[in-house]
Amino acid sequence: MFETTSKPAASGTVPSASNGDSACRVALVGFGTVGRSVAKILCENPQPNIHLTHIVNRKVERKKQPWVPAHVVWTDDVQSVLKSDSEIIVELIGGLNPAHQIVRSALESGKSVVTANKQLIARHGPDLLQLAASRGCQLEFGASVAGGVPVLPALRTGLCGDRLHGIAGILNGTCNYILSRIEHARIPFSEALEEAQARGYAEADASEDLDGGDARAKLAILALAGLHARVVPESVRARTIRAIDAIDFDYAAELGCTIRQISRADLKSDGLLAEVGPCLVPLDSPFGRVQRNLNLVLTSGQYGGDMAFLGAGAGGDPTAVAVVSDLMFVAEGLSGEKRTASGPVSAPVVSSDFETPWYLRFYVRDQPGIVARLAEIMAVHRLNIDSLLQKPGFDKSALPFVITLEPCRDSVLHPALEKMSNLDFSIRPCLCLPILR
Amino acid sequence: MFETTSKPAASGTVPSASNGDSACRVALVGFGTVGRSVAKILCENPQPNIHLTHIVNRKVERKKQPWVPAHVVWTDDVQSVLKSDSEIIVELIGGLNPAHQIVRSALESGKSVVTANKQLIARHGPDLLQLAASRGCQLEFGASVAGGVPVLPALRTGLCGDRLHGIAGILNGTCNYILSRIEHARIPFSEALEEAQARGYAEADASEDLDGGDARAKLAILALAGLHARVVPESVRARTIRAIDAIDFDYAAELGCTIRQISRADLKSDGLLAEVGPCLVPLDSPFGRVQRNLNLVLTSGQYGGDMAFLGAGAGGDPTAVAVVSDLMFVAEGLSGEKRTASGPVSAPVVSSDFETPWYLRFYVRDQPGIVARLAEIMAVHRLNIDSLLQKPGFDKSALPFVITLEPCRDSVLHPALEKMSNLDFSIRPCLCLPILR
Repeated sequence: MFETTSKPAASGTVPSASNGDSACRVALVGFGTVGRSVAKILCENPQPNIHLTHIVNRKVERKKQPWVPAHVVWTDDVQSVLKSDSEIIVELIGGLNPAHQIVRSALESGKSVVTANKQLIARHGPDLLQLAASRGCQLEFGASVAGGVPVLPALRTGLCGDRLHGIAGILNGTCNYILSRIEHARIPFSEALEEAQARGYAEADASEDLDGGDARAKLAILALAGLHARVVPESVRARTIRAIDAIDFDYAAELGCTIRQISRADLKSDGLLAEVGPCLVPLDSPFGRVQRNLNLVLTSGQYGGDMAFLGAGAGGDPTAVAVVSDLMFVAEGLSGEKRTASGPVSAPVVSSDFETPWYLRFYVRDQPGIVARLAEIMAVHRLNIDSLLQKPGFDKSALPFVITLEPCRDSVLHPALEKMSNLDFSIRPCLCLPILR
Repeated sequence: MFETTSKPAASGTVPSASNGDSACRVALVGFGTVGRSVAKILCENPQPNIHLTHIVNRKVERKKQPWVPAHVVWTDDVQSVLKSDSEIIVELIGGLNPAHQIVRSALESGKSVVTANKQLIARHGPDLLQLAASRGCQLEFGASVAGGVPVLPALRTGLCGDRLHGIAGILNGTCNYILSRIEHARIPFSEALEEAQARGYAEADASEDLDGGDARAKLAILALAGLHARVVPESVRARTIRAIDAIDFDYAAELGCTIRQISRADLKSDGLLAEVGPCLVPLDSPFGRVQRNLNLVLTSGQYGGDMAFLGAGAGGDPTAVAVVSDLMFVAEGLSGEKRTASGPVSAPVVSSDFETPWYLRFYVRDQPGIVARLAEIMAVHRLNIDSLLQKPGFDKSALPFVITLEPCRDSVLHPALEKMSNLDFSIRPCLCLPILR
């Protein structure tokens, strides 16, 4: 049971949902997949210092949702929102226009901006950051690279004390889906692409993904945030993955490798080495093991060494987590109310009664009937044996063998274990390990 | 060449090292391995809003370093520092006493605290956070878990918009070193422990590591920061790894698994499931692949799904990165000067002239002398062939084969590639991929 000390209830009665006295006024511009997820998270987990005031979208009538509080204004007039007293604009319409104008005029009027717009930040990030600084407001874009993988926030907080010199990543889920499909099914490129399109992992015109345009915009943002380098996306060479075919995975496998679209940037004394394109990577390397549409980012720092971040690189909900996190960060700064590092805290009852399959290793003096006696105890306690393993070649006076059990709770297993450890043929306590899947 | 716009030069002339007019006054308490690294990073990369005023250590005379600026006061009198006008205390002495008293009195007098002290935070974190909040100052402890792996900062920033329900990790480098050594060398536990001690990965009395005390303190901190749950470390069951032996890795391998010390916590509706101890994990899972003294943390969230963080869990420099990052975060809040998300920015020349080994895949109409002609072109361009791969069974009119090259620059390879693509037997452009290692 939880002894909740000060956590707000997930109802519409908390201050953030019902009024915005001390909370930041937030307008959501763009109500597509990500915008909808952002609104959902904010409604399901009201934050005391965030007050949603507007939702802006074209043809907004068909977008209205019953779960959005009644005080929220639905509108298709972004200008009215820019002139309103909203303090934070969340830009989720994507693309350069009109997103650029919206973000620029928000910042010019002193509103802070949270955006997931990679093309905007890759092209205009440094200028917009300067504009934000000159107006005393904030521009956050943690969702613009690798969706829900918190690599940009980590660069900004936990790694800002390091001097990074290299960043490399699998940043495009479409390419990674296609390449890992060819890897596993050895189908032609064209078939993998069609499959990705059918499953919604690739657009009808997938050029931006396949030819590296998407990934190099993200690489430019990572270079900005991690290497403090201003990189024009078009200055980064991008090689297409269209030329890759099943045969290349055969040859790569002979070299102990597979193929992934890698985006990489290395800061050198005389400039920045940067490129996006398919590369051979060792099968047993972090890159080689990234499957489906996951994203992986590796950073290399002078003091902290190498770091890896892996997670869902896209999707409405993961990207929305990044947006809401940025929003909380900006709101914290605006409201002057520092969250403590942990937020409100509960004091749950702690138990170790996990339900898992189990590994039981016995050391016994061999004699007839051992397995029968163990099996009998297990049957009494309703434990199901999954397998029995015994390696040959051991001394019969100290014979190690293993029984694995189907999933059960620790509390069910424990009494049986005690009985088994007391058996006369047992020469060491049974070693009992959970098997994690 | 870099066109540095506003990055401070790494010299003693920048404001932070020479005076502290607008900078936060910082005292470093504890000058061991981590404290020394923190001072080194601050001196090598001066931050405009951080001004180091004191270094405190017992018998401080023997600790003095020539590279620390002359204005820094070296002292063994922590009380004088607590009474000084320092605004931030960096506590790096470790252990509960006197660290607890020092941190408490710093917070009581309104000083913010940055600490790497896991035992202190695991035991007194919630109370100290409350104390900090009541005094309007900050307590940061990003370095207390997983050293340089920015999981705590990520929980605080990029993942704060999610609702996490599970955290699991390899949090103890000593256990992981020992277990991965047994895995690879199949040596007895006692031998692996001796080796770890000889190499400095385990202390003479390694009980705190082997029996799970260290990891469960870290798990309690992760539960606090990520699950917002107050967990007394002693309420978490800890199982020792001392009972694991080489034979267990044989049996685990038969089950497709290896063995790791896992710390895990799952938030359930009726409480918290938590435990530390050796578990079987699949060989091809993220946990199964963590070698040596690396740390891995997995988080599971309601909206963002699963996320993995991998990196150096200990060591002076990685831990110091976490401390300096926290320090920059607190100083930013105190000085009222928001860093922009990217900091000062350079505009480096961008090139794709990476030096790597290469994979060249040709499609040719088979005829005698193909390899000879390709080899001749490569010799002229001083490219060294590493291997030649040709799979049997292909139509001679469209034969794919591969040449791999030893490392060379892209700019050296490119002219040769052009010549090779123009050869009459070539029926497709040569596919050229970097091989990353």
